[in-house]
Amino acid sequence: MNWYTEQWSNECKFSIAYDKALYSEKTPFQQIDFYQSKEFGTFFTLDGLMMVNEKDEFIYHDMIVHPAFATNPGIKKVLIIGGGDGGTAREVLRYSTVEEVVMVEIDERVFRLCQEFLPVTASGVEEDNRMTLLFEDGLAYVQNAPDHSFDLILVDSTDPISVGEGLFTTAFYQECYRVLNKDGILINQHESPYFTEYAANMKKAHQKIKNIFPITNVYQYHMPTYPSGHWLFGFASKAFDPLKDIHAEAWNSFGLQTKYYNTDLHVGAFGLPNYVKEALKREK
Amino acid sequence: MNWYTEQWSNECKFSIAYDKALYSEKTPFQQIDFYQSKEFGTFFTLDGLMMVNEKDEFIYHDMIVHPAFATNPGIKKVLIIGGGDGGTAREVLRYSTVEEVVMVEIDERVFRLCQEFLPVTASGVEEDNRMTLLFEDGLAYVQNAPDHSFDLILVDSTDPISVGEGLFTTAFYQECYRVLNKDGILINQHESPYFTEYAANMKKAHQKIKNIFPITNVYQYHMPTYPSGHWLFGFASKAFDPLKDIHAEAWNSFGLQTKYYNTDLHVGAFGLPNYVKEALKREK
Repeated sequence: MNWYTEQWSNECKFSIAYDKALYSEKTPFQQIDFYQSKEFGTFFTLDGLMMVNEKDEFIYHDMIVHPAFATNPGIKKVLIIGGGDGGTAREVLRYSTVEEVVMVEIDERVFRLCQEFLPVTASGVEEDNRMTLLFEDGLAYVQNAPDHSFDLILVDSTDPISVGEGLFTTAFYQECYRVLNKDGILINQHESPYFTEYAANMKKAHQKIKNIFPITNVYQYHMPTYPSGHWLFGFASKAFDPLKDIHAEAWNSFGLQTKYYNTDLHVGAFGLPNYVKEALKREK
Repeated sequence: MNWYTEQWSNECKFSIAYDKALYSEKTPFQQIDFYQSKEFGTFFTLDGLMMVNEKDEFIYHDMIVHPAFATNPGIKKVLIIGGGDGGTAREVLRYSTVEEVVMVEIDERVFRLCQEFLPVTASGVEEDNRMTLLFEDGLAYVQNAPDHSFDLILVDSTDPISVGEGLFTTAFYQECYRVLNKDGILINQHESPYFTEYAANMKKAHQKIKNIFPITNVYQYHMPTYPSGHWLFGFASKAFDPLKDIHAEAWNSFGLQTKYYNTDLHVGAFGLPNYVKEALKREK
């Protein structure tokens, strides 16, 4: 048996048996590897870290997209930073009320390879006429974008190392604030509370965002193939509170079938364990 | 480096580096192994499966105990089936309002070895004068227990293999029903929705309990060292609904410091993903 192994910490690792290494490529940005496995279907890694697999990508993509739409069902203009596999765009494009989606992925090869090997996330995205696909740096894009031009920004990034690093900076979050409409929402990949290194990144990101947005929350989801399985998104907003302003009825009337998300779970996802709340509070 | 490895499924495994194998023993019931690790502190396994470690035992023990007490803060008589490490009893005994705790663990060696190697869970349990410790079969115990003799039964068991098997049977759940008071609550270790084998056990347990108790729910928690990290407890009850009847104020007035549980999280824990709700519904 061949095993793909990821270190979840120095002292802990997670391994997946694969039948076949499908494809490898080193781009100017990162190492990309696709594998075929029985348990998780096709999956790919960036710099050796699990990004997307067919078994549980629905969890991540439900949770990065739908809570914002249940909070503000009127979202029309969406900016996706990263998200090269296409799964986040796929979920956003399910809303017929969305008029415009700009996706800014730094590494075109990620998207092209997912079109080839992972159609479950990438298929149909490029063809949708509401979609603008840009292969450039996300930080540079928001720096040049006009004020108040989006209702929602989704930061679908890797960890704050290599290409993902700029997407965890105060400069980036400030530009997001400026680029968002007066009731705009920012959702960002927020790491994990359990292993030390991930928890440190979680705390740093939260502190930076708290200094910029008036409303900041963190919500959790069960993502078994990410380190510890306990993962977070940040919910930052200029006007809407994700709990007080939830429009459960309006969201349910969209009639979307989802395998993970529902509006009860939406509320529950913000009910963080005490140790996570403490960690988010403690950082000065 | 030495690695303890657990198969989470045939195609997926989780490994922990340990500094030292502390102790091994084969009892008439199972294989017990204690290890010393940096990341997780001391941990022990039964038949090669992770049971308890110092890093995240607080999550499991908070979640098996406190939701029942927040639903019925008047609980006085508690039966623990299994729970040989002592952590469940430790949490129950924190309630000064609890008058009597009977713990029935089939394998005395688990408890004695935890007293020696894992005082964080076992220490102080035997010394509490409200505690009755019995080392015998849990199923036989409930079969012989009088009607209506407990307010709460906590089934803190292994998976439904070897010694844990009898604690996943209709016969056992029926006896629990009989032994519980008219407003009694049953909490049981309910496996996990993600990997096939665990999900099958989850479905079977739920179906059996649904046929016996009028109120049945399942709630989730993030337990990184159990397969997939997405784990469940069953909440079955004769009278109280864990959401409608939550007494958040009463529970908070107990003044217990908890690292995982809080009453917002209590509500959120019952907000299951659609795929889990479907799986629990589908079973005929």
